Amino acid sequence: MTINSQKISSREQAEAILDKYDYFLFDCDGVLWLGDHLLPHVIETIDLLQSKGKTVLFVTNNSTKCREEYTKKFHKLGFGSVTKEQIVGSSYATAVYIEKIMKLPKDKKIWVLGERGIEIELQEAGYQTLGGTDPELNVDSFDPEHPYFNLDDDVGCVVAGLLFQVNYLKLSLTLQYLLKDNKSIPFVGTNIDSTFPMKGKLLMGAGSIIESVVFASGRQPDAVCGKPNSGMMNTIKAKNEGLKANPLKGLMIGDRLNTDMLFGRNGGLDTLLVLTGIELEQLVSKVEQQPTYYASKLGVIYELTQ
Amino acid sequence: MTINSQKISSREQAEAILDKYDYFLFDCDGVLWLGDHLLPHVIETIDLLQSKGKTVLFVTNNSTKCREEYTKKFHKLGFGSVTKEQIVGSSYATAVYIEKIMKLPKDKKIWVLGERGIEIELQEAGYQTLGGTDPELNVDSFDPEHPYFNLDDDVGCVVAGLLFQVNYLKLSLTLQYLLKDNKSIPFVGTNIDSTFPMKGKLLMGAGSIIESVVFASGRQPDAVCGKPNSGMMNTIKAKNEGLKANPLKGLMIGDRLNTDMLFGRNGGLDTLLVLTGIELEQLVSKVEQQPTYYASKLGVIYELTQ
Repeated sequence: MTINSQKISSREQAEAILDKYDYFLFDCDGVLWLGDHLLPHVIETIDLLQSKGKTVLFVTNNSTKCREEYTKKFHKLGFGSVTKEQIVGSSYATAVYIEKIMKLPKDKKIWVLGERGIEIELQEAGYQTLGGTDPELNVDSFDPEHPYFNLDDDVGCVVAGLLFQVNYLKLSLTLQYLLKDNKSIPFVGTNIDSTFPMKGKLLMGAGSIIESVVFASGRQPDAVCGKPNSGMMNTIKAKNEGLKANPLKGLMIGDRLNTDMLFGRNGGLDTLLVLTGIELEQLVSKVEQQPTYYASKLGVIYELTQ
Repeated sequence: MTINSQKISSREQAEAILDKYDYFLFDCDGVLWLGDHLLPHVIETIDLLQSKGKTVLFVTNNSTKCREEYTKKFHKLGFGSVTKEQIVGSSYATAVYIEKIMKLPKDKKIWVLGERGIEIELQEAGYQTLGGTDPELNVDSFDPEHPYFNLDDDVGCVVAGLLFQVNYLKLSLTLQYLLKDNKSIPFVGTNIDSTFPMKGKLLMGAGSIIESVVFASGRQPDAVCGKPNSGMMNTIKAKNEGLKANPLKGLMIGDRLNTDMLFGRNGGLDTLLVLTGIELEQLVSKVEQQPTYYASKLGVIYELTQ
């Protein structure tokens, strides 16, 4: 296959992009930073876009942090002007989905297999959460008589995502709620990334944790909120009328073909793949749906226009 | 669909079974016991078979115990005459597979995502294991700089199965070995049961733990050794020439249609489904491949012949 994707390597190309788009949606890890390591000239690129009045949004599948915490990460890394309103995380999108689309009554509780970020966003939306980071669940050895096996009949939804403190008790309790009431309690996943890049390694992603309870329960999630699923894009478009009216005014920038690029394309946006994350240049020619553009790194947009 | 399966409910039927078969293969949990609770008249049934000179084998997908420990469980529950040679566990079958079929050199190490039972059987076969129940891996919080991320180049096989002390570190380390050397290290699963019955609950089964690293790595196991896979049956037939020569002299007795009954049928044996475990009587008529027989419980064979 040949490359139809345009490689951004000249000042003209970089300037054409600045002219053409009003909405810039960014994946974070692998695009702006790798773990805690900032990639070159990314702050300058974001500043450049904001100085030109562009709408800049950060779209992340990381569900372990809420928007508030994620904003702090931006500030700590030197993105001084980024606000909570610019962050669209999969935990936030999950809360929006449950509240606005699923319309789960506020007196229902939500069982969480996941980190603090999910709990906070669900609680901000007005729901009581169970499970999650509850210290009662961080047990050293599994006890099949753990009191939490007395299931709570008020649980009206199960949310699953990435959690670092995963254990057999949390997985098995989640399974009980997925099987309860003839498998009728709605099941929502934050995102389906199979891996999670950290410190140069690929670790277990949310999708791989979710998959274990999917296999055990014989159920697929009723909805998945992160990229590349449409729930996240609908949340963004609902708050950005111009993008909703004309998706081609938007550019989705990411490092993953099967989530970021697919997400942008499915939403009707153009796409830019950066090679600082998970994908290699050789792959661009091999995929059926190539991104609109690709670049060695995000920072070239700043570098080429100086 | 109609029931073609014969329900065992008369003395004649029970005696016909005792006459017809020489090899009786038993699943354990859900057939002989539920957790630590013995089912009625199972010891008497096993004693009856042994007094008639039948070959009695216990075929279990439980990989958490080695044959030695499993024999102790039999003795503790009152099956006084059961010996280690009668036990065929998925961890033993896994060790036999790796040694005899895969022929992994003995100077290669094996990375284990699983319990002590797997480690012991692999060690008895002459291999050094890594991972598994190593206390260094039972960490309270995940550290991406854990020294075990310096992978051991002598690892020549990854074995995954059920483990109660599952955590993010063990899963992520297993993922590193599955991805290492361009995904070339052989990957063996003990068994693919999605759930694990305990104290009246369905907990996470080996298959559900394995599935998480399958999804993360994008790899399927190169072999799965437990029921219903053929590896386990080949191990049994290799040691029982009469069954190998004439599989219809064997009866596989179990409580699961999709593992036990399939396992027996694929091996050319007749099958008996007991309803003390996971399946309901209504289901017998609904499956395409019905068992040869079914019974409310194993103990009826003893009860009907007294």
